[in-house]
Amino acid sequence: MKLKQLKENELIAAIKKDFSPHADDLILGIGDDAAVIPGKDRNWIITKDLLIEDYHFLSASHPPALLGKKSLNVNISDIAAMGCDPRFALLGLGLPSGTDPAWIQEFFLGLKEAARTFDVELIGGDVTQAEKITISVTLVGEGKKLIKRSGAKPGHLIYVSGTLGDSGQGLLVSKQGIKLGEGLETDFLLHAFLDPAPQVSLGKELARLQAASAMIDISDGLSVDLGHICEESGTGAEIYLDRIPVSPELLSLSENPLTLALHGGEDYQLLFTVPTGKEKTVLDLGKRFRLTRIGQITSGRKILSVDEKGKKQTLEIKGYQHF
Amino acid sequence: MKLKQLKENELIAAIKKDFSPHADDLILGIGDDAAVIPGKDRNWIITKDLLIEDYHFLSASHPPALLGKKSLNVNISDIAAMGCDPRFALLGLGLPSGTDPAWIQEFFLGLKEAARTFDVELIGGDVTQAEKITISVTLVGEGKKLIKRSGAKPGHLIYVSGTLGDSGQGLLVSKQGIKLGEGLETDFLLHAFLDPAPQVSLGKELARLQAASAMIDISDGLSVDLGHICEESGTGAEIYLDRIPVSPELLSLSENPLTLALHGGEDYQLLFTVPTGKEKTVLDLGKRFRLTRIGQITSGRKILSVDEKGKKQTLEIKGYQHF
Repeated sequence: MKLKQLKENELIAAIKKDFSPHADDLILGIGDDAAVIPGKDRNWIITKDLLIEDYHFLSASHPPALLGKKSLNVNISDIAAMGCDPRFALLGLGLPSGTDPAWIQEFFLGLKEAARTFDVELIGGDVTQAEKITISVTLVGEGKKLIKRSGAKPGHLIYVSGTLGDSGQGLLVSKQGIKLGEGLETDFLLHAFLDPAPQVSLGKELARLQAASAMIDISDGLSVDLGHICEESGTGAEIYLDRIPVSPELLSLSENPLTLALHGGEDYQLLFTVPTGKEKTVLDLGKRFRLTRIGQITSGRKILSVDEKGKKQTLEIKGYQHF
Repeated sequence: MKLKQLKENELIAAIKKDFSPHADDLILGIGDDAAVIPGKDRNWIITKDLLIEDYHFLSASHPPALLGKKSLNVNISDIAAMGCDPRFALLGLGLPSGTDPAWIQEFFLGLKEAARTFDVELIGGDVTQAEKITISVTLVGEGKKLIKRSGAKPGHLIYVSGTLGDSGQGLLVSKQGIKLGEGLETDFLLHAFLDPAPQVSLGKELARLQAASAMIDISDGLSVDLGHICEESGTGAEIYLDRIPVSPELLSLSENPLTLALHGGEDYQLLFTVPTGKEKTVLDLGKRFRLTRIGQITSGRKILSVDEKGKKQTLEIKGYQHF
């Protein structure tokens, strides 16, 4: 996703500059996981994503039901990353002429399953012809307390949910032509890539308990997404490499588990910072969710990695080119 | 747009069935021009559209600034068709690798112009690589009184704004290789196609004056969009063929002006029905906007055309295949 990343950052910077200043009734604009507009007794949060065949997924190796599910879930993850509740979705779907109706049906079954799981309602959209399968989901969420990317302060602890790098390795496994059902370890990794689970409950709990000062979902990779938090918060960070959570499956099958965990992307786990006084709250949450403290926010602007011998060096901020 | 139309209707019907019933706090779901969620002191209206190179536009003949403008304006038109105010936009943009930066800049200049004209703010989005230029705009509007497609009743008068068929002829002119600047008549028609103007002021006035019982913007063609109003309202309609407003430019250059006016699509004029007691209000509005009464709503479910001799026949409901 390196190319995507570069282009996206440059373009978003240009667009941001062009379209400011913001309207008075808009709480949060371009640059966070979602935009926010105020509602009657809660805020409405809007996010959207564009998934294009051969760039974001390969239709030959992505079962349509899982693709439908993932299309919604990656947007749900953006809402979860603000500590909010996903509510309504709009779907823009471009389909090549002659698409198998069974494919379309499976795709919608998967989308529906994700919608049911997270109580999301499909309220509109647009279906049209396209050369490549093109999926554009807009998701509306709601929340009273929002967790932005910009609230991290020096001394705040950095946490991550789940394990990292599984999705990146799942992609590699998929590229080797291995499919679901061929082995327990490969199934685990393939699921992380083909069928990621957005961390909605965790996000909402962190918001309710006011236990996170900044949060983002890991879509572009730990290094890139930590970079976003530091940039928006005006801080630096230190990350302990030996604390980054990796799965036994990744360790078993990958030659570079740490590289994938740092830069692999598409894990859709939550990366968040914990303010002073909330450490105990997060330890308690750790009984219900897999949470790992991986470092802390610092006052400089540098993002450093610390290895098991205590040696610090600048963490390379890079994503991963998928296809 | 015939293929698009068929697929879209079938799929929307299937999706509609799958995703009902609606949440309590959702006023309007799939099937209208936009979905509505309630706000503090007004309703928020959301719509989205997907435009794909070679299916909805040809990049060789569509100047990028006008394409940027049109991408936003076709969504603004959906909001106008509910009598509401466009407010916030999200952009999903897929660009082929190696897209000329000048093209991107022009595209954004055009988008920005449309945003400024209608006081719309770009609040987020996603930029990625794609094989074909892929544009997905989500637009959020606001309004207190909404005009739906479903409010028409027998006896209500049918009105249309502007002239119809110009965009369809503009497409034909464009396909002949004629560009802007080659003649006044072709410029008029090309502009209708490349640079349509959404009828925001008219839509808002109709809402404010409660002068329209049902409304839609003409994107798929008069016949198809009148079909939508009748279907959602559970009514029929009669249309006087000799009253359908056509421009001198269309009459001068087209061999089938009436066919284009009935089925051409992409005019983005407003088609609305006027309830009993509001005829005078609309006559007054006619001093500020070009409005033409073209027929009335009937109690059957048939949609009939009436020719200049009074002969009635079933109006063929069909759209137009663009590319």
